[in-house]
Amino acid sequence: MTDLAARVRSFIDTHVIPAENESDGDIEAAGGEELRLKLQEHARREGIFAPHAPTAYGGRGLTMTERAPVFEAAGRSVFGPMALGVNAPDEGNVHLLDQVASPAQRTRYLGPLARGEVRSAFAMTEPPPGAGSDPSMLRTVARDAPGGWLISGRKKFITGADGAGFLIVMARTDAGATMFLVPADAPGVHLNRHVSTMDKSMLGGHCELTLDDVRAGPEDVLGEVGQGFRYAQVRLGPARTTHVMRWLGAAQRAHEAAVAYAAARSAWGQPLTGLGMVEQMIADNEIDLAATRALLMSACRALDAGSPAREQTSLAKVFGAEALHRVADRAMQMCGGAGVSADLPVARIAREIRPFRIYDGPSEVHRMSLARRAVRRYGVAQP
Amino acid sequence: MTDLAARVRSFIDTHVIPAENESDGDIEAAGGEELRLKLQEHARREGIFAPHAPTAYGGRGLTMTERAPVFEAAGRSVFGPMALGVNAPDEGNVHLLDQVASPAQRTRYLGPLARGEVRSAFAMTEPPPGAGSDPSMLRTVARDAPGGWLISGRKKFITGADGAGFLIVMARTDAGATMFLVPADAPGVHLNRHVSTMDKSMLGGHCELTLDDVRAGPEDVLGEVGQGFRYAQVRLGPARTTHVMRWLGAAQRAHEAAVAYAAARSAWGQPLTGLGMVEQMIADNEIDLAATRALLMSACRALDAGSPAREQTSLAKVFGAEALHRVADRAMQMCGGAGVSADLPVARIAREIRPFRIYDGPSEVHRMSLARRAVRRYGVAQP
Amino acid sequence: MTDLAARVRSFIDTHVIPAENESDGDIEAAGGEELRLKLQEHARREGIFAPHAPTAYGGRGLTMTERAPVFEAAGRSVFGPMALGVNAPDEGNVHLLDQVASPAQRTRYLGPLARGEVRSAFAMTEPPPGAGSDPSMLRTVARDAPGGWLISGRKKFITGADGAGFLIVMARTDAGATMFLVPADAPGVHLNRHVSTMDKSMLGGHCELTLDDVRAGPEDVLGEVGQGFRYAQVRLGPARTTHVMRWLGAAQRAHEAAVAYAAARSAWGQPLTGLGMVEQMIADNEIDLAATRALLMSACRALDAGSPAREQTSLAKVFGAEALHRVADRAMQMCGGAGVSADLPVARIAREIRPFRIYDGPSEVHRMSLARRAVRRYGVAQP
Amino acid sequence: MTDLAARVRSFIDTHVIPAENESDGDIEAAGGEELRLKLQEHARREGIFAPHAPTAYGGRGLTMTERAPVFEAAGRSVFGPMALGVNAPDEGNVHLLDQVASPAQRTRYLGPLARGEVRSAFAMTEPPPGAGSDPSMLRTVARDAPGGWLISGRKKFITGADGAGFLIVMARTDAGATMFLVPADAPGVHLNRHVSTMDKSMLGGHCELTLDDVRAGPEDVLGEVGQGFRYAQVRLGPARTTHVMRWLGAAQRAHEAAVAYAAARSAWGQPLTGLGMVEQMIADNEIDLAATRALLMSACRALDAGSPAREQTSLAKVFGAEALHRVADRAMQMCGGAGVSADLPVARIAREIRPFRIYDGPSEVHRMSLARRAVRRYGVAQP
Repeated sequence: MTDLAARVRSFIDTHVIPAENESDGDIEAAGGEELRLKLQEHARREGIFAPHAPTAYGGRGLTMTERAPVFEAAGRSVFGPMALGVNAPDEGNVHLLDQVASPAQRTRYLGPLARGEVRSAFAMTEPPPGAGSDPSMLRTVARDAPGGWLISGRKKFITGADGAGFLIVMARTDAGATMFLVPADAPGVHLNRHVSTMDKSMLGGHCELTLDDVRAGPEDVLGEVGQGFRYAQVRLGPARTTHVMRWLGAAQRAHEAAVAYAAARSAWGQPLTGLGMVEQMIADNEIDLAATRALLMSACRALDAGSPAREQTSLAKVFGAEALHRVADRAMQMCGGAGVSADLPVARIAREIRPFRIYDGPSEVHRMSLARRAVRRYGVAQP
Repeated sequence: MTDLAARVRSFIDTHVIPAENESDGDIEAAGGEELRLKLQEHARREGIFAPHAPTAYGGRGLTMTERAPVFEAAGRSVFGPMALGVNAPDEGNVHLLDQVASPAQRTRYLGPLARGEVRSAFAMTEPPPGAGSDPSMLRTVARDAPGGWLISGRKKFITGADGAGFLIVMARTDAGATMFLVPADAPGVHLNRHVSTMDKSMLGGHCELTLDDVRAGPEDVLGEVGQGFRYAQVRLGPARTTHVMRWLGAAQRAHEAAVAYAAARSAWGQPLTGLGMVEQMIADNEIDLAATRALLMSACRALDAGSPAREQTSLAKVFGAEALHRVADRAMQMCGGAGVSADLPVARIAREIRPFRIYDGPSEVHRMSLARRAVRRYGVAQP
Repeated sequence: MTDLAARVRSFIDTHVIPAENESDGDIEAAGGEELRLKLQEHARREGIFAPHAPTAYGGRGLTMTERAPVFEAAGRSVFGPMALGVNAPDEGNVHLLDQVASPAQRTRYLGPLARGEVRSAFAMTEPPPGAGSDPSMLRTVARDAPGGWLISGRKKFITGADGAGFLIVMARTDAGATMFLVPADAPGVHLNRHVSTMDKSMLGGHCELTLDDVRAGPEDVLGEVGQGFRYAQVRLGPARTTHVMRWLGAAQRAHEAAVAYAAARSAWGQPLTGLGMVEQMIADNEIDLAATRALLMSACRALDAGSPAREQTSLAKVFGAEALHRVADRAMQMCGGAGVSADLPVARIAREIRPFRIYDGPSEVHRMSLARRAVRRYGVAQP
Repeated sequence: MTDLAARVRSFIDTHVIPAENESDGDIEAAGGEELRLKLQEHARREGIFAPHAPTAYGGRGLTMTERAPVFEAAGRSVFGPMALGVNAPDEGNVHLLDQVASPAQRTRYLGPLARGEVRSAFAMTEPPPGAGSDPSMLRTVARDAPGGWLISGRKKFITGADGAGFLIVMARTDAGATMFLVPADAPGVHLNRHVSTMDKSMLGGHCELTLDDVRAGPEDVLGEVGQGFRYAQVRLGPARTTHVMRWLGAAQRAHEAAVAYAAARSAWGQPLTGLGMVEQMIADNEIDLAATRALLMSACRALDAGSPAREQTSLAKVFGAEALHRVADRAMQMCGGAGVSADLPVARIAREIRPFRIYDGPSEVHRMSLARRAVRRYGVAQP
């Protein structure tokens, strides 16, 4: 497995990082479909494509613990996860479908997705006053109609929606929140716009959609009617954990680039890396990276043991999102002016990582949930 | 004065902020020369242009204390300082020229600059291994030549150089570091490229220049030969202080936008502003803004009293740069997904502010200097 | 005024600091009444006693702005404020009585207190479930009785109560919260115990009291019946501001002691003060001290201008309490093992300062109030 | 093993915590020899004494991974480690002797120590200008003498020295730094004083010693002459790791006590644990505790695998010392006035934990070493 991570690392260094800047001057674009196909084909030839996917679909069925170093290696480049097909939201959707989809859905959706033939999106979040941090505010409705439902509502921040082959849509039925599989070209699905965000590396962007009487039949229900929030949890724990893996790779790269830069520059008669305040930033980065990795592996072990691991994945996510942002921020600071420029990969990584403190549950929501568990555990004991 | 600040605030809200996004889709451009001329003409008609400039050049000759609220109001928009002609580096250059320039130089350079007829640049920083945080590493050389000097070297991060009418160039002569006034179209001045940085609002960019045997005569020396570092200090104290004023305005706007956003959205049955963790972010912003303002005013009072105020301006700069970045970061966090998008001004301000922890002296260099002063003061006493 | 501060500084260095450790081995005691009388008599002879007190009572009637450097100088020693009679709660009680007391009350209580003939206590806080951070939970009751009221209830954390001549007691009457002046030896006043706290320097301790049908007549009402919470505010703003002054002095001393210690010790071939990570701690201390001082002076100016200055004093208190604790904590860290020992004054100051983040309103309560003001200001604007 | 931890937890709750305050009024004393003997005898009867000791000496020979939950349970009480005989410095000395001691030394020193018959001390640190953070400054000298050496020098912060049966003394011979086993009653060993420190729970205190021509023979050399620094490393890695285990238990207890306290008190109409700012403190504690535990277990696994694990143990120590101090500090803050008093165990734990950021290598020294490793790893790569 370490061997696989090393091969991924080498592939990223050799083939993906050079592609980061190849689109002339536009350092922020997500690369585009053409680049995706080219890199994924290359990864397939190297035998490293989709290592997370079930073996039935050509993957390696890696456990979470096994994924961690591989996804970290992929995450070194903002295009690395896409190149291996382990990018969000597809990777999480593969997991969800593998857990819940019917045989027909597996054939129609899971297979093509796992093989990289199509991309997908997970359409849960809504613009205010709909479902955001508080999912109970879900407003998209699937109302009864002959032969199934008609789904209507608005969705926002739907990552990868532009160019996706299908969407997993969360909507409210009479029986409760329900997930539907919806082809992206179904009548009534409208892509309104890309939300322009700080991060630019997600292929297919973060989109705003309108669903206008989109027709769905019983065969389109993912799992059971009314179980949408439960499946969201099935998806969420692993998905946020693999996010940490990928961003860990990016932050690690920023850190390494900054140390290398600082070691090669001098001031006051010594390399910058000899200055105590720079040493402090380097050490703080090492600490934040190590602590993120340690919490990440705890979450992986819990998930691999079959636990929903909500607490462990929450801990890894909230700590990781904040720690990795600090790492990238210190990396910028260590490099001075070059650190905030496109001359080094550092500023770009910092910009890409920042939103992770908000995506997949803002830090504040994770803290609220962690606090409430602690109060249930300790709130009754005698001090 | 409060009245002037109020008028500036109103001008920014009404005329400058709407222009921020008018260049279709390109939210990051610095606006361009056309926008500058339009906004400056408008500001002139409103009687609020160049309030810092000497009265002899049509300005109001505001003291530093008087500038603070006015520049803060201007700083609410990333284009506001440019609209009033109080942007870096022109504003600092006006100050420097007013202190040091000869009568002829005042006529040729200071007047046009103060009136907004030309822009300028301050060419001190060099790429490694030249002058960066440690100015003693200056490598640009002005070697003796008949009738004066020939200046050669490389400069980097020269803000506003593209489109500037003239440059103030720091170079090493036999008699020590010296400042030269150099027309931007002088033979031998080459603009190599814009360094692509996180911040995008500086008109004329951050440029890399080559100076190749640029000819300068005695009449082009700013002040006296060999006094370059001393004049750099004359410029630096006030320049970093007015930077704090401008970024304070930007951070204040981000904070206000975030509070307004959070007050208008709900989760778990109450406005986001009713949640304790959001209250904490709001309060921490209020504290950081107030403390920045308090340190800023201390520095202004010291400067107005005639002190070089190196310690007070350093304190205001290092605290302000870090505190205002925290304010903008919390403002993003408070707004969730919208906070990291272009739907609110917050993410843009956060991106623009971040480099200020590096520009005008990285926080680490200011800390080194503050520590050394403290050691001189207290290092000999008995504990 | 600077002159007065300098004289106080010299008195503290020469006469008070040596007394800190004179009680053999017991570094934590508050000194005791004997020491108080000795030091206060000495201060009176030096002409520096009670500079805050009204001139009618022998004081100098210093404004808040004038007090700041004097109280800071006094605060350098944990016994300094007591030596000058500017310690809590007496100093705040002098202020409150000067604002609100009747002529007879001035003669009976204010005069002796201002002259240091007696000490006093302010009895508002109660044990749970009574008045703590939320004063509306006040449970001490003054119920109507012939000729006045009978006051019953429990009070906790009543600073200085042991040995005080009189108490200002907050109790609930039919007409609302009311302040009463109660001689400490009035029947029904019971001192249950000293609460043993981290800080040890408050003469008279932090006490738990029971009030058991303590009789009070109309002449014992401070100000008007039902106005207790309003007067608490009158007292609170200045009282928390002078707290910042005193703790600023203590933190400044810890900082100076740490710099002097570190300058005199070496490791890796240089003085500790030459190590970058130590420089960072020194600089961060300088920044925290300067920012506290700047916010403090803003609050003083607002108070002197006649404003209740609730926001400014809250800002100074919450920032100051946290910043000064950081200063003392860094000072310990700089000194290594000596820093956490009684060989230097640093650890003691750190221990004394820590509770200030809780006393006079926990940081969280100040943040709540600051946030709510901000929401009222900005929560309605359009983002 | 979990079962053993549970038994230890129960023993601590039932027998050790009640003893914390039993010495009337003196909450700070380390308990004394009588208490030690009583508690250790009790632990022996329960079959939980000295679980770390080699089985040959009656222990269980637990691996580091196995020790972690057991030592954490013991650490809940400041007297818990002493009760089980797993306190510093004895526990680390058992480890060192087990690695290095000769058969005769094992019989004479290791056996009695492992069985709790004697206590020990590790005498390396010296007062300035001797060995502190920089061990190369070692000044205690073992000069050649007939039949061995004569050791002279001064030692400071020698934990547990008062009452110890023997000392492990680091001294400089011609062949380099060397460790000697010295009976505490050997002629020339003088205990000058206890250094009075913030932490009070170490039985035998932190002592200052003078060594005045203390005679040592070849049989008193621990391991080989000249290998003292190498053995110090053998001891250091595990010793700092078990420190983290013990303090983790203390911080965990402070956290639990604070949550229980806050859950039982109300303000503004709800339990304190329902306030967002309190939830934030609770969550931050959970995060810090989990991250400490995760880094700790990484270090344990590396040590158990036979690695010196200098980097992993350094990471666990520096993160743990800072994180656990934050946990205890937040626990105090959550409890308001009670938090800084002796009414709860929180303030005492906070005070005991603080010096751990200095003991066993100040955070700054660990950061320096972590940074240098990182520079060696990444400083040559191309950014």
